[in-house]
Parts: sequence; C-alpha cells; structure tokens
Amino acid sequence: MSVAGAGGVQRIRHGLAHAVVLALLVATLGGCASAPGGGSTGGTPSAGASSAASAATALPSWRDGAARQTIVRFVESVTRQGSPEYVPPAERIAVFDNDGTLWSEQPLYFQFFFLLDQVRAAAPQHPEWKSNPAFKAIMANDMAGLMREEKRLLPLIAQANSGMTVDEYDRTIRAWLDTARHPKFNRRYTDLVFQPQLELLNYLRANGFKTFIVSGGTIEFMRPWSERVYGIPPEQVVGSTQSVTYEMRGGQPTLVRGPKLEFINDGAGKPVGIYRQIGRRPILAVGNSDGDLQMLQYTMAGTGSRLAVLVHHDDAEREFAYDRKSGIGKLDRALDEARARGWTVISMQQDWSQIYPSVRTQP
Amino acid sequence: MSVAGAGGVQRIRHGLAHAVVLALLVATLGGCASAPGGGSTGGTPSAGASSAASAATALPSWRDGAARQTIVRFVESVTRQGSPEYVPPAERIAVFDNDGTLWSEQPLYFQFFFLLDQVRAAAPQHPEWKSNPAFKAIMANDMAGLMREEKRLLPLIAQANSGMTVDEYDRTIRAWLDTARHPKFNRRYTDLVFQPQLELLNYLRANGFKTFIVSGGTIEFMRPWSERVYGIPPEQVVGSTQSVTYEMRGGQPTLVRGPKLEFINDGAGKPVGIYRQIGRRPILAVGNSDGDLQMLQYTMAGTGSRLAVLVHHDDAEREFAYDRKSGIGKLDRALDEARARGWTVISMQQDWSQIYPSVRTQP
Repeated sequence: MSVAGAGGVQRIRHGLAHAVVLALLVATLGGCASAPGGGSTGGTPSAGASSAASAATALPSWRDGAARQTIVRFVESVTRQGSPEYVPPAERIAVFDNDGTLWSEQPLYFQFFFLLDQVRAAAPQHPEWKSNPAFKAIMANDMAGLMREEKRLLPLIAQANSGMTVDEYDRTIRAWLDTARHPKFNRRYTDLVFQPQLELLNYLRANGFKTFIVSGGTIEFMRPWSERVYGIPPEQVVGSTQSVTYEMRGGQPTLVRGPKLEFINDGAGKPVGIYRQIGRRPILAVGNSDGDLQMLQYTMAGTGSRLAVLVHHDDAEREFAYDRKSGIGKLDRALDEARARGWTVISMQQDWSQIYPSVRTQP
Repeated sequence: MSVAGAGGVQRIRHGLAHAVVLALLVATLGGCASAPGGGSTGGTPSAGASSAASAATALPSWRDGAARQTIVRFVESVTRQGSPEYVPPAERIAVFDNDGTLWSEQPLYFQFFFLLDQVRAAAPQHPEWKSNPAFKAIMANDMAGLMREEKRLLPLIAQANSGMTVDEYDRTIRAWLDTARHPKFNRRYTDLVFQPQLELLNYLRANGFKTFIVSGGTIEFMRPWSERVYGIPPEQVVGSTQSVTYEMRGGQPTLVRGPKLEFINDGAGKPVGIYRQIGRRPILAVGNSDGDLQMLQYTMAGTGSRLAVLVHHDDAEREFAYDRKSGIGKLDRALDEARARGWTVISMQQDWSQIYPSVRTQP
C-alpha cells in the first residue's frame, strides 16, 4: 500500500481543519512508555544506576547535559532507600506520550497514514466512493484537494476502519506496519522510534518504574507493537478508544469495531485516561506538545518528588524541527509553562547523540 | 453512618426495578482478581505448585475436590515448560469478577449501601430533598417505600456522589469502609472477602499470572482497597466508570466527578472493558453470575488451554444461598452454559472449608 508523498503531506498538515485533527488526527497524538525487552512491571528494582558513569552505560545515546543529569538525579533520589524523596516501587508510575515523544510524528501522525491506506484498501468494496471528491483526492495523492474535502473524508475513514472484528483489525495493522514506509526516511514506522527513549524506558524499569504509554493514538494501533518495540505490554497502553461491541459471529464470541470515536485521550483527556486506566498519579511524565500539557500539570500537582519532561524537536537535519507554529505536535503553551516552572526540556539536537535505532526492527 | 437493616434490604433486592439495577446496582456487579501481598505482575513464575500436596499448601481453604483439582491441573499445564499447553507469563491473564466472586454481594451490592449512605451524609446540604419521597424512604430505612420511588432515587444518588474531586471521593470511600458494617455479619465489608479466593489469587501470581478485577462496580470504589486486600493494584482494576473532568480548582489541577455513569462494565460490557484496559484475551476467568457470562464466553473462545470458573452460592449457613431467582447476582443462564460446556462450578458449601478470613482487615 502506498503512502501519500512527502510533498502532499507537507501541505495537508497545514490544511486539514481542526475537526479532523481533533476527531482523528489528534487521536494519533499521544503519550507512551517503555523500551524493548521483557514485560514492564512494578517489581523490585535492581540496584539503581548510582552515578554518572552508570547513567552513561544505561543511557548511551544521551549526551551528558542538564536533561540527562536531571533525569538520573530524579531516578536516584526516588529509588534510594532512606532518601526523603523515596517512592515505593508500586507508586513509580511513568507515563510517556507516544507521537513525537517515543517516535516521530511528522509529516503526519503515522496512524493517519494508516487510516488513509485503509480507505484505499477498502475501495473495491465501496464503488459508491468513486464519485466522492475526498476519495478522489486520496487516490490521486492530492493532499491539497483532500484538505478541502475534510467533511467527506471523515465518513470514508470511519467506514474503512470499522465493521471488522478487533482481531481482523489487529492483523491489518500488523501487516501494514510490516510493509509501509515513511515518506522521508523510507524506513518502517516502527524503526522511527527514538533510541534514547528506548534506553530511558529500560533504565526506568530497571529502577522499578512501571512504564505506560498515554497517547492520543488509539489503543489498537499501538498495542500490536508496543511490547516488542518499547517493552510496554498492551495493558499499559492508555489511548483513545473507538466503540467496540460484543457480538456472536458464526457462533463465536467476537468484538466488533463500531465507527464512533468514544474517548479522545489528548489534552485534558490525558489525566482522565490516566485516572481511568492507571488509577494512580504518575511521578514522571514525558511529552512533546501542547496535547501533553495537562498530563504534565497533573503529574506535577501531586506531593513528593516528581518530574516533567518535554521533548523539543529542534533537529531538522536528523529528524524534524518544529514547535509553536506546527499543525502537528504544536509545542507552544507547554513550552512556556516548562520554562516558567523549570520543567526539563530535551533538545533532540543537543541532548541526543543518536535519534533512531541503528538496527531495523524485525518484521 | 448507618446501613439499611437486613429485613428492609431483603425486600429492596426484589423490588428495585431494572433501571436502578442496570444503572447503579449492576454498576456494583463485577469481576475482580488478586490476593493480599505485593503488587501483581506478569513476572517470571516461581516453581509452580506441582502436586496435590503443594496445592494443599497453596490453597489450604480449598477442600480436595473437582474444583481445586481442575484449577491446579490447569495452572500446572500452562506453566510447565515444554507442555503443549504452555503459555508464556505475559499472556497469563486471569480476570475475576468482584461482587459475589471475591467478596459477598448480599443482601445488596456493598457499593449500593455506600451510595445510600452518601445520600444520607449529603442531606444537610440539600434541604430541598426533604419533600422527596425517595429521600424520606432512605431516612426511614423504608426499603419498600424506596423501591416504589426509584425514579426519584437516581437523581439523589447522582447528586450525592458527584461534584467532588476524585481525591475527596477516595477519602470518603476509605472512611466509609473503615466504619460501615455488614447488616448480617456485623463486620467490615472488606472483611467479607473470600479466603479461598485470596489464596487462589496468590497461587496464580506465584505461577506468573497477572491478576485483574473485571467488575460491574465502579473503579473508584474498588481501587482504595484492592491492592491491600487482594494484592491487585489500581491499574489492574477494570470496572464501570463515571464521568470525570479535568479542571483547575484554586490553581490546582484536579479531576472532578460528574454525575454520568459513562460505561457499565457488566454483561456484554465486560469483554469490552477487558479489550479496552487489558488488550489481551484472558486465559482464566472467574465469575458467579449471569453478568459474567460474556466474560467467560470470551475467555473460552480463544485458542489454547483456558479455564472458566463459576462460584455457586449454595451455603446459606456460612454465607448466602441464591442462584436462578435472585435479584442480586442472578445465576441462571451462566449455570446452564457452565454445565453444557463443562466449565468448573465451585460449590461454596462443599469446596471451601472456610469462607471469610479469620483475621479482620486493618482499618
């Protein structure tokens, strides 16, 4: 399946209006949390990294600077028995946004590429779409045309991404992730996760943290690969949810996808999603955009030692550079608040010696 | 705070009509999963109990019979490396209903006692309630009167249980659990958990299972005590959810309870709740009523070795005896299906040598 060309895509992100962004694209914003290797649990921490030297070992893609030092100091203080900042393992909840925080999100949220490809794939079953201008725009990779036809686009996306069982949809997502390639890097999307964050997730888990994704993306899009790629099991993925109903199909109990987006786990929805699914206030939150602001505020409003971290996309050469003016992953109010409150801001350019893993993920 | 007398309560459970049952009482039905002691994780199993002798040690309140044997055989088969039934730890998901499965649910769902007590407690702030017949019935412990006034009751309950922050409500629940007593046993509600199930939860976790509650009860009512009493951390409690919104109050980010019951995690809602929050199909499900039927069906419809278990309340002397005709915890269709499909049915009278823990819970 083809993905929209990078040029068209650059245009779409400035053009698609807010309804789409809020209803579906923003459903691809999000938060997320954990690196490759074993299930993440809140078990007993192994001996925590206890020096800059061990931090360098645990976080090799992080340059020694304020960001890494702050993170390591925080982890050491909450894990040291007898420290006034000590936090028992069960309460070491770390939440990570996904898009833009754990993997890239430009030129469009990766889930949106998938949703459009689903429309293309479903076309043979929908001859009535042929006269739909939004459909024509998709098939012509005419992103400028598509952005003018947003209202006609939404029903296509809803139709193409509902009606099947959750198991069928899961297989579709896995197949897509195996074959689709990013328009700029020509790599699998799951290869475009941030190596320093994989290390951070592992480092946190090694120190007894339980790592969660808290993303605007939908749960079913992240869960097929979150465990393999981030080490975050499905039950620790908090995301937007589409309606699902329990039905008997051919005598078999199945869950069938409805067309309705029920809950948008973004912005003020993130603390709500955390409350619903985790039921504890995190002590560490990592995001990259204004959609993460409330999650960071909520995390920092608790008692005891806590840490809020923002990833700043300032590396046009190795990834993308964008913040206050971006249609995707806009970072404006949260950046102001981070500076006012002394939250940690990661410069991808300065703090990370490597962006993506060198080794490609297994199909 | 007082609770309704046992006599009136016996009447209410046959009288309160289905709207209440579905909207609020059924919100107290449910599923649940894990025993006292440490957080439950999907970590490496310790050497599984591998004989009837070790099962007797791990499950001392279970008499040696078909139920215990089936459970032990199942656990041994899925944990034995090289066994054709072997299941990796990450996939050893066990789900337990709560009301009637992990603790008692008669003469009324315990959460409903709490909700009524909240109405009593909120009365001073609501002089306008004085003329409300439902309110009069509550204050007079007139359950027969209350059941006639169901429509007027619901708004009272909604008002008395919303508007506060989730932290305030959490403290209210904890305080109530410390002081309220069960009308028949005159014990704390959290003392009325089933000792054999506490042992089973521990046994499963010792064998690498991750234990979850999947209950019709609301998440905030179970989470304050699920970890202490069952060993099930808040993030492994799946339940019904009430609307919650993120707000700034006095400059502080808070989550405020709205009046709307958003999701009823009962019946066909249970597989949906499992999908949303766990994202994997369980291999072991334990329930006790028709509200658990779909959860058990969904669990059994997966591939590989799986186990469905029903608790049958047939012990009028030590607990309660009820099934097909009961307004609370009705067990009818699920019992038929269990017998038709060979699911395991626990007789509380025959299979459990002890019902409740001997030692009372700590306040």
